[in-house]
Amino acid sequence: MTYCVGLKLEKGIVFMSDTRTNAGVDDIATVKKLHTWSLPGERVFTLMCAGNLATTQSVVSLLDERTKKPENRSPSLLQVPTLFQAARLIGDTLKEVIQANSDTGQEAESTFNATMIFGGQIKGMGPRLFLIYPEGNFIEAGDDTPFFQIGETKYGRPILVRAYAPSLSFAQAIKLLLVSFDSTIKANLSVGLPIDVQIYETDSLQLGESRRIQATDPYFRQISSGWRDALQRALNGLPDYPL
Amino acid sequence: MTYCVGLKLEKGIVFMSDTRTNAGVDDIATVKKLHTWSLPGERVFTLMCAGNLATTQSVVSLLDERTKKPENRSPSLLQVPTLFQAARLIGDTLKEVIQANSDTGQEAESTFNATMIFGGQIKGMGPRLFLIYPEGNFIEAGDDTPFFQIGETKYGRPILVRAYAPSLSFAQAIKLLLVSFDSTIKANLSVGLPIDVQIYETDSLQLGESRRIQATDPYFRQISSGWRDALQRALNGLPDYPL
Repeated sequence: MTYCVGLKLEKGIVFMSDTRTNAGVDDIATVKKLHTWSLPGERVFTLMCAGNLATTQSVVSLLDERTKKPENRSPSLLQVPTLFQAARLIGDTLKEVIQANSDTGQEAESTFNATMIFGGQIKGMGPRLFLIYPEGNFIEAGDDTPFFQIGETKYGRPILVRAYAPSLSFAQAIKLLLVSFDSTIKANLSVGLPIDVQIYETDSLQLGESRRIQATDPYFRQISSGWRDALQRALNGLPDYPL
Repeated sequence: MTYCVGLKLEKGIVFMSDTRTNAGVDDIATVKKLHTWSLPGERVFTLMCAGNLATTQSVVSLLDERTKKPENRSPSLLQVPTLFQAARLIGDTLKEVIQANSDTGQEAESTFNATMIFGGQIKGMGPRLFLIYPEGNFIEAGDDTPFFQIGETKYGRPILVRAYAPSLSFAQAIKLLLVSFDSTIKANLSVGLPIDVQIYETDSLQLGESRRIQATDPYFRQISSGWRDALQRALNGLPDYPL
């Protein structure tokens, strides 16, 4: 499994991804699931992947190849005119890879499946964030659905639902996401540290800060233990059930 | 779906269950999933069910019939010598019902499946809590695994993992469980109010307090809104990520 969240804020977009991949509990590894492409000053894209690793790596490699030799590989992520077209290109590539590996085509439960979060900005247009399905279609984040989760989404959802606000700063948003990731990591062995973070600041048109947070990271440890204590205090602050 | 939790404490056991059942999003109803049997002073049992409603109602009816005419239906829940034997009886009944409705027998993904939480006490022995699988086998709660969840378990798990303590009072445990249920209800339409609560106090050998908490319950509303504010404060109390 995997856990990735793309969070749209007034200030930009924060992408966070775990790095654990596993084929059975006795075959685990660390792999980067967060990928970026950019032409500074012109366009910036970030993609996060959950699902079959062979599928997602193949999609990223195909997208990469197209960006490296634009003269003979079109369309490329670095050429498409809009983010909508970029999402379509990724969706089509994803669907093709899944179909090529699958006997039955667009089968929702196929083990070759993958889901992706894709976002960024192209000069002259606003930043956008998409959730791309294995069938190749996608939905876009808006004011009512300001974030997308993929992978092991349930454990970390309640805190996002309750504490998200579009006005969060990047530093606050990363704190909120780390709490959500910590809850997931504590509950599910298939999601694990280190955690990759990528910030995109609206209209900067260049990749923002990028961090890899290790299990030994003092801030992460502080959040993890601090959150436990804070939850206990929060619970103690509520009145007990009147029996 | 469903959400039920059985929580083993030093003082006894708390059982909590939602009451929503659905066959598609346009066919929802309220149904009791928490059932009790008792011979006051001698034995007390509580059973909670998640899964196919025809299966779980059939199991409960079969168990009920056996308790009502003990002279010609043996073994009965009111006759078995130990809680282990009671769990075995329920597991066997569950497996039989699933197999009778299923072409393929013990298929883990069968739509006739159900999972159950069963607990209580028989005079002269300690209280016990079991999780019964559709295959008819079961596991028991202990010091390391002091609670069981069935149904839509993930949303409400992080708070249980972090705030459970065996020394909780019943009033504190119900508060904790209501926070866990509220998180689940906010995230998943297939879990809904009202919520049934059943307390069993160790060595009382009679059913403890039993409550049905409605959506209009002032305490539940206080917990639901109070928890949102408490989470916000808890998050604000942690340091922002250093960028």
